Amino acid sequence: GGGSSVSDSLLFVSTLDGSLHAVTKRSGAIRWTLKEDPVLQVPSHVEEPAFLPDPNDGSLYTLGNIHSQGLTKLPFTIPELVLASPCRSSDGILYMGKKQDVWYVVDVISGEKRQTLTSSFADSVCPSSSLLYLGRTEYTITMYDTKNKELRWNATYYDYAAPLLDEDTDYRMAHFVSNGDGLVVTVDVDSGDVLWIQNYASPVVALYIWQREGLRKVLHTNVGEETLRYLTFMSGEVAPITKWKYPFPKEAETTSKLMPTLYVGKYSSSLYASSSLVHEGVTVVPRGRVIPLLDGPAITIEENGECEVTPSTDLNTLHKLRYWRNQWLLIGHHEMPLSAPSQILDTFPSPLPRGGQKVIESARDKARYREEVLGIEAPPSQDISDISKPILTTEAPVDSMLKDLATIILSTFLLAGWLAFVINYPK
Amino acid sequence: GGGSSVSDSLLFVSTLDGSLHAVTKRSGAIRWTLKEDPVLQVPSHVEEPAFLPDPNDGSLYTLGNIHSQGLTKLPFTIPELVLASPCRSSDGILYMGKKQDVWYVVDVISGEKRQTLTSSFADSVCPSSSLLYLGRTEYTITMYDTKNKELRWNATYYDYAAPLLDEDTDYRMAHFVSNGDGLVVTVDVDSGDVLWIQNYASPVVALYIWQREGLRKVLHTNVGEETLRYLTFMSGEVAPITKWKYPFPKEAETTSKLMPTLYVGKYSSSLYASSSLVHEGVTVVPRGRVIPLLDGPAITIEENGECEVTPSTDLNTLHKLRYWRNQWLLIGHHEMPLSAPSQILDTFPSPLPRGGQKVIESARDKARYREEVLGIEAPPSQDISDISKPILTTEAPVDSMLKDLATIILSTFLLAGWLAFVINYPK
Repeated sequence: GGGSSVSDSLLFVSTLDGSLHAVTKRSGAIRWTLKEDPVLQVPSHVEEPAFLPDPNDGSLYTLGNIHSQGLTKLPFTIPELVLASPCRSSDGILYMGKKQDVWYVVDVISGEKRQTLTSSFADSVCPSSSLLYLGRTEYTITMYDTKNKELRWNATYYDYAAPLLDEDTDYRMAHFVSNGDGLVVTVDVDSGDVLWIQNYASPVVALYIWQREGLRKVLHTNVGEETLRYLTFMSGEVAPITKWKYPFPKEAETTSKLMPTLYVGKYSSSLYASSSLVHEGVTVVPRGRVIPLLDGPAITIEENGECEVTPSTDLNTLHKLRYWRNQWLLIGHHEMPLSAPSQILDTFPSPLPRGGQKVIESARDKARYREEVLGIEAPPSQDISDISKPILTTEAPVDSMLKDLATIILSTFLLAGWLAFVINYPK
Repeated sequence: GGGSSVSDSLLFVSTLDGSLHAVTKRSGAIRWTLKEDPVLQVPSHVEEPAFLPDPNDGSLYTLGNIHSQGLTKLPFTIPELVLASPCRSSDGILYMGKKQDVWYVVDVISGEKRQTLTSSFADSVCPSSSLLYLGRTEYTITMYDTKNKELRWNATYYDYAAPLLDEDTDYRMAHFVSNGDGLVVTVDVDSGDVLWIQNYASPVVALYIWQREGLRKVLHTNVGEETLRYLTFMSGEVAPITKWKYPFPKEAETTSKLMPTLYVGKYSSSLYASSSLVHEGVTVVPRGRVIPLLDGPAITIEENGECEVTPSTDLNTLHKLRYWRNQWLLIGHHEMPLSAPSQILDTFPSPLPRGGQKVIESARDKARYREEVLGIEAPPSQDISDISKPILTTEAPVDSMLKDLATIILSTFLLAGWLAFVINYPK
């Protein structure tokens, strides 16, 4: 009845601070907000910020004390680690996972939460005609160092349960979100019109629509804060936007103007990382620049080329001060990091879900998104087993290069279209 | 050092009551026991025993009120359901999962538990030279009925984290375990000698060895209690056993004497199910015999052939009495059930891990076990996506038939060898 047409008209915007905004598809205006726990929680009692999580998908980046590589990307996400644990790595780290689901039963008209269901708790509910069932999962990974008998790191990542849109869905909007704030630019993929611009106060990590009685994920593109503002001519207030040339002409052959980077940001007291397209004016920290957070662990490179990491444990006030000072140097855009040498992964007693459906589907879906929505030929989809192979060179792996290339092409089109608009606008 | 040789000499026997016995490989004698929560926990506040879990792998069987099929096997296990949830089925059931890991740090000599590590808790530890790290996972699945606003069923299944043995491991023992009690018969696969017979008081659900600093699963064969006693000439006390002809001759072409069945047993206040080979003398309940536990849900068969199940909610004292009386009729051996029509599975909003590594590996490993250890050619491994297809006929699916056939061949060999021994023994 009325509830169904209401849910069809809504877009659901998940932000880093744990809000799920129900907004209208037409204007992006907020109808109601469900406020839950923040997407990422890194308890502050762990001194060393060993890993930076990506709130978009739970990917992990290290602060790279191994071989002084700076930021590196680990070949697994928090959900994958949680599903693969309990497991143990050669350097004496025990991994413990926890996955816990919860269902929120929400009135689609008012946004009122009628019921919360967990495996141990179900409260009573008043009957209502138009209810949304929203499933959310909490993934917690804990790393315990058996050598130093101490907790090394732990983190919690929350994700709404939502498969991608059905293949035959005719979804004609593209969403560009800013990494540093809550800005969202929504573009019509047919006409190239900018449909609406909204700011949801906290960085957007996911967008969903309601389809077949459940949330379905809509892909988005992460763009640097300054770049998104630059592209949309925003400087403090929303300018009258007319057209964002889209889809972009395939024959454009300009040099790369938008660059794929890794954005490091801060939420609450913890750092996070997120992929980010930026234009030439944005400062990017070159790859391999080591930012000393602590004196760093003692590294012993053994004869066979393997590396044993002994994290430093003698934290004192000086270290803490240095950490808090240097942490600010990290925040900003970094050159896209390499994949980490999978020293930790290779020695798991439990095999990681290498061929796991979740991983493959995600890669395939992204390819589909590039191909269908953005009109870009995807690079051959990378077998996840390749990712888990150790990368011993300091050069970028070929797969990563291909991906970067695709992103650069996309970025070029994006900017070329915008320049075309700028040139034509005054006429 | 000494700890390493001790752990190499041990076999770890997990039983339904939650014990992990460290026993010697040579005699099966218990060195020490780690006592934890029982492998299965089905809270008693749920009135209707909707599903029977298998403590060996967390498989699920229904009590089959759909189309009066009696016992049916569901196409997913408790761990698979937990990893796939949160999800929702067309009949208004919400699934909630919880997965929680724990590490037990145990002294290999004394069996003393030195430390317990969870994602939220880590107690202090005294240094020790020879520690075992045992990872155990708790899987809890909860089903909530949105139509009747009540908890429909929930269950907890515990499993030690252990991949299968390395492919190149030369493991020359085969273990036959009884379903109704804790009897284990261990046979040398080369000589056919019965190495040892032990009774661990509670049904054995898994066996492990220590390899590469972790538990590795050793496969076992579930045999009916009477059949295992019959085969080993046991009647109250252990008889002097000499040889169990093993491996079995491949050219044997006798008719089937051992039959694969499903054993339904009771532990604490809840029922469980387990595959079981039985000989001719054992009573087997024919397939499709419906044992009314309750008046049964109202079933509406709709025009398109789909079936909507409305569980009965008006439980009263009479129902409870009938349940407790009829429950005893279930205990025993049943003809191998068919796969359930996957009415519940097909409509999950979240896709189950159809191509999940865990599922495929398990199937592959079992095939390897049959081929290498038992010397039997495995049927072509079944793609998990086939399992999730609805089976609408009441005939056994071909894949299941193939598997049964393999089991029958194995059983025949098993009995043929035994008969050969019986005939030759008095000479």
